[in-house]
Amino acid sequence: MIFTRFDRYVDRHARAFTERLQEICRMPSVAARGTGMRAMAEAIEKLMQRAGAGTRSFKIGSGYPILFGECGAGTKSFVVYGHYDVAPVGQLTDWTSGPFAPAIIDGKLYARGAANSKGDLVARLAAVEAYQKSFGKLPVCLRFIVEGEAGIGSPSLYRFAEINRELIAAEGCIWEEGHKDTQERFVISLGFKGITFLELRAHGARTDLHSKWAAIVQNPAWRLVQALSTVTSPKGVITIDGFSSHIAPVAAEDAEALKEIQLDEAGLKREFRIGGWLRGMRGSSLVKELIFGPTCTICGIQTGHTEAGPKTVLPSYAMARLDFRLVPDLTPQLVVELLRKHLDARGFKDVEIIELGSAPVTKSSRESSVARAAIESAPEIYGAPPVVFPLDPASGPVGTICGATDPPMAVVSFGMSYAGSNPHGPNENIRIEDFLQSIKYFGRVIHHLGEEVRQSKSGSHRISQALVLSES
Amino acid sequence: MIFTRFDRYVDRHARAFTERLQEICRMPSVAARGTGMRAMAEAIEKLMQRAGAGTRSFKIGSGYPILFGECGAGTKSFVVYGHYDVAPVGQLTDWTSGPFAPAIIDGKLYARGAANSKGDLVARLAAVEAYQKSFGKLPVCLRFIVEGEAGIGSPSLYRFAEINRELIAAEGCIWEEGHKDTQERFVISLGFKGITFLELRAHGARTDLHSKWAAIVQNPAWRLVQALSTVTSPKGVITIDGFSSHIAPVAAEDAEALKEIQLDEAGLKREFRIGGWLRGMRGSSLVKELIFGPTCTICGIQTGHTEAGPKTVLPSYAMARLDFRLVPDLTPQLVVELLRKHLDARGFKDVEIIELGSAPVTKSSRESSVARAAIESAPEIYGAPPVVFPLDPASGPVGTICGATDPPMAVVSFGMSYAGSNPHGPNENIRIEDFLQSIKYFGRVIHHLGEEVRQSKSGSHRISQALVLSES
Repeated sequence: MIFTRFDRYVDRHARAFTERLQEICRMPSVAARGTGMRAMAEAIEKLMQRAGAGTRSFKIGSGYPILFGECGAGTKSFVVYGHYDVAPVGQLTDWTSGPFAPAIIDGKLYARGAANSKGDLVARLAAVEAYQKSFGKLPVCLRFIVEGEAGIGSPSLYRFAEINRELIAAEGCIWEEGHKDTQERFVISLGFKGITFLELRAHGARTDLHSKWAAIVQNPAWRLVQALSTVTSPKGVITIDGFSSHIAPVAAEDAEALKEIQLDEAGLKREFRIGGWLRGMRGSSLVKELIFGPTCTICGIQTGHTEAGPKTVLPSYAMARLDFRLVPDLTPQLVVELLRKHLDARGFKDVEIIELGSAPVTKSSRESSVARAAIESAPEIYGAPPVVFPLDPASGPVGTICGATDPPMAVVSFGMSYAGSNPHGPNENIRIEDFLQSIKYFGRVIHHLGEEVRQSKSGSHRISQALVLSES
Repeated sequence: MIFTRFDRYVDRHARAFTERLQEICRMPSVAARGTGMRAMAEAIEKLMQRAGAGTRSFKIGSGYPILFGECGAGTKSFVVYGHYDVAPVGQLTDWTSGPFAPAIIDGKLYARGAANSKGDLVARLAAVEAYQKSFGKLPVCLRFIVEGEAGIGSPSLYRFAEINRELIAAEGCIWEEGHKDTQERFVISLGFKGITFLELRAHGARTDLHSKWAAIVQNPAWRLVQALSTVTSPKGVITIDGFSSHIAPVAAEDAEALKEIQLDEAGLKREFRIGGWLRGMRGSSLVKELIFGPTCTICGIQTGHTEAGPKTVLPSYAMARLDFRLVPDLTPQLVVELLRKHLDARGFKDVEIIELGSAPVTKSSRESSVARAAIESAPEIYGAPPVVFPLDPASGPVGTICGATDPPMAVVSFGMSYAGSNPHGPNENIRIEDFLQSIKYFGRVIHHLGEEVRQSKSGSHRISQALVLSES
């Protein structure tokens, strides 16, 4: 298929698409804060309608709306997952421009959510629009599912998936985002690590006390530190009783895939400004650990007085947030059980564990239609075959969507970030060039999905009918 | 001496004195923040002048003024230490009324600084005023030294003491504050634990990263937790190499004094809302640990994302604030050296130690003039002999003042707090009744100091002369 017309449409609308993204990024939508969520959902729904999608908005309890937008034709459908909420902004002083005042500087758009993942959502809808304006109807049916709670554990999405299984059940799923590596190579992921996000809490006196009382009153900060210190070794290896025995060996096919992946160690070290890697790893062992290593991260600890100026208090309370990134065959439930037993066995029954959210591991075949479409579309746009990750080190509520079919549908993820995008940190940004490129790429993916469907025996006939129907 | 006239003056001015305290508490003076410090210093200087003191204001570099106020007569002087700065207010939401909107509810005055220690300063100056109005000149010379940096390690006071040794050198020192215990028994302390206040820091990537990177990038929060966990045992015992060998055994005379002290364990447990004491201690071992046990307190830890709402980040930075309360023969310098060696020996050379402030242990004789005056004045006002602590579990820059003479001058501390004053926490408060009582008590202390001086051979003659001179 010749994409000249499509590409010309994208080029002609480059400025309009960029402004559309700026408009979306100007709207704050931190799910944890709640400000502007309704307005954001309405704007996204309008954006979907503008791309020709028939939309529905689902509200689960008091949650933020889940937007469903269907476009294209065919009995063969593919889910395109996205979210309109963004990560908290952190310290405002760390930002060069306002997180919700999208600024374009040197071809980069700076805004919270630009990379994760409003940019990809806007680009994909722009591609749908361009595709239809250039070629008429889409060759497949795309079902956009866009939630507003990705940053707070996707509670509504879980319930939505239970109730609306038929809306989700599809041939495959395209996940929200992805990146180019530090060598500017386009990355495609065929699944995600699981996650379980926990809060550990220790309690002391009813209020912070003068620290002279520390001689005789238990300090919850010490309890927490002592409990945490048993969870990993000083070298950063997870030491929870029984944990390692649940880590599956890396399959031969995955070990092959790992060989294709080269981390730009020097580039990443520069980017992160670090001298070396955990435990002195490098080369293939580093890649293997990134892709198939489970993690236990202290994401935050808060206790006592930590503002400027000394204040000698005995804290009344201490809490740590931990996220575990899970690889086969670790499950969220298993990790919580093991951790509880581990702490109990060491006398830390007083340290509470609160589950904040979780998602299982998801992993798809390279031969699935979504994987093939994504991989085959890459060279034309990105100039080379993509780097394929058998598992993305990140996580998401992928299992919720992909589990709507049995066996679970295949998932693939890619997107427009680059190594400097800093998606969860300050000065989150994307390059406008990447944004436009990703629109063109997504047009090719839509086309290849159509090809995949045509080539599969079961789908070919019905698809043609559907095309006729939808063209009438 | 008959105090009828003095007491009547205090009673008649009870309301005015209380309003004076409210006025002082209305002025925010958190040294760590810096707001309102100059206005506060000016107000305190005026308050001293109102009590008949000749005042001077010392400014050391960019520090907050140190106020010096001298009143009374005689070559025998006693230092009265105080500070006009207050602890940070912490979470405003934890306060029932504004920390700087002094509210009197059920006979209690709620305000940051009311207990620690604007109340005592205002009361002592009120006593000086009442004494002079009732009896003429004071029988001794009181030198009020009031700093504005108690909450930030008293840097100016150290320099001030070096430069103005002759202003400080005195017969003894009355320290800022004290309390009644949970059984309403008046407490007098004959010294203070030392303190060293440190910050431990660990560094990771240049910015918070997506926590997927935790598989290969070192987490400074884990480094800090692992390092800290070696500093105490899970039971809360300090485990720094060589630390315990520097703790002097409790002297026989001090062991005797400890027998007089009875902690109201049940009352304190209720007050703190805790089920039991550290390591299950109770009775005499609990008292001994409170008075003569060194402490290492995590006063605060901050790392990563700790606001509401989940955010899975790999922190770029982690810090903990530790205070050590020191008993004989531990010194601040020794503790820092031992801690550094201890961490280095365990591979934590990357964990920085920053010294934020320190003060040595100070301990005085029960036979010193200040101790005798304080102890002997108590029964008339408080209805019973005071509880005498050989060492106060709290700390302060006492050594700075008391070290102005050789041997160091004796120090004694007492004040108007009660068990529910919560001096470093939210809803700090004093009881108005205690405030007025402490004015009357301080009048007696002034008188007894005069008696002490008269009874000491060396002082009697010169004092009389001074009285004559100052009365002219």
